[in-house]
Amino acid sequence: MNHKHLAEPTVSTEKIFEGKIISLYVDTVTLPNGKQATREIVHHPGAVAVLALTEKDRVILVRQFRKPCDRTLVEIPAGKLEPGEDPAECAKRELLEETGYTAKEWRHLHSMYTSPGFADEKIHLYLAKGLTKGQQELDADEFLDLMEADMAEAERLLASGEIADAKTMVALYWWMKERAKAEK
Amino acid sequence: MNHKHLAEPTVSTEKIFEGKIISLYVDTVTLPNGKQATREIVHHPGAVAVLALTEKDRVILVRQFRKPCDRTLVEIPAGKLEPGEDPAECAKRELLEETGYTAKEWRHLHSMYTSPGFADEKIHLYLAKGLTKGQQELDADEFLDLMEADMAEAERLLASGEIADAKTMVALYWWMKERAKAEK
Repeated sequence: MNHKHLAEPTVSTEKIFEGKIISLYVDTVTLPNGKQATREIVHHPGAVAVLALTEKDRVILVRQFRKPCDRTLVEIPAGKLEPGEDPAECAKRELLEETGYTAKEWRHLHSMYTSPGFADEKIHLYLAKGLTKGQQELDADEFLDLMEADMAEAERLLASGEIADAKTMVALYWWMKERAKAEK
Repeated sequence: MNHKHLAEPTVSTEKIFEGKIISLYVDTVTLPNGKQATREIVHHPGAVAVLALTEKDRVILVRQFRKPCDRTLVEIPAGKLEPGEDPAECAKRELLEETGYTAKEWRHLHSMYTSPGFADEKIHLYLAKGLTKGQQELDADEFLDLMEADMAEAERLLASGEIADAKTMVALYWWMKERAKAEK
């Protein structure tokens, strides 16, 4: 189904800013009622995130400072796509760089828009199992603390708000749902 | 814990754009290694989202056109905070406006950053039960299709990619996890 009765075709587009990571546009669109409106749109290259589970069913996490939130957050490993990069390759690269882990089994779980009201950022979420620990390969300007948590500890981090980003919640609730189903 | 070894204090901040919904800043920060770097930061007023479940354990959904993604998405009801608005009040207002439902039972589930790498948007997620159907009160320039799904249909919408936004996935996986736990 096209759902054309909801579409907002573009009348004109104005580029406001092009940065190192994001760019910003203001589009004028035609609404379904024929009126015009503006839409503020952030373009982002897209990213990957990895739910990496150890043999003991523990999740690999990283703590990072997130300037927009002015605090540290505990998140699953993640990173931006390089131009033209395949998301599955990016997931392997980011897991290795941020955590030192490589994984034997990879599975694409979902691709998700994080803020569809104002941004096109799409995160490709992967499950990684069969982990082998090697050396982190952080960028010179990347700083993070590596962590590991079992499900009870992950629940505590969710309840305390130390885990408070949407992609990590999607991954952890998926994991908890799968475990609860398996235990039925 | 402060995790001060990860912090990125601000050296200077430059305002690039102030729009109707978002604004954009480029901050210069000091990294933990003493070097300077820039951070592109989108400010957003914050939002609410509502996992509204009927007596028959069906979820209320809305289909909307999302210009940044250039497609429609099926999402849980959601909307931006007005200046100074209490998130719990906003959740009640948005559920009524978008779907016509009021709810007897409300519970705050989580507050989540949607894109902590480049935006401060925080979505407050609520569970709403004890629903009564009334009249939608859409804004003049708001267009959406109201839907309802049981859990199997929600799983189908996730698998097909019609549901593809992070807040809706967090809400649905939370629901599925709770149901699976209850059935153990």
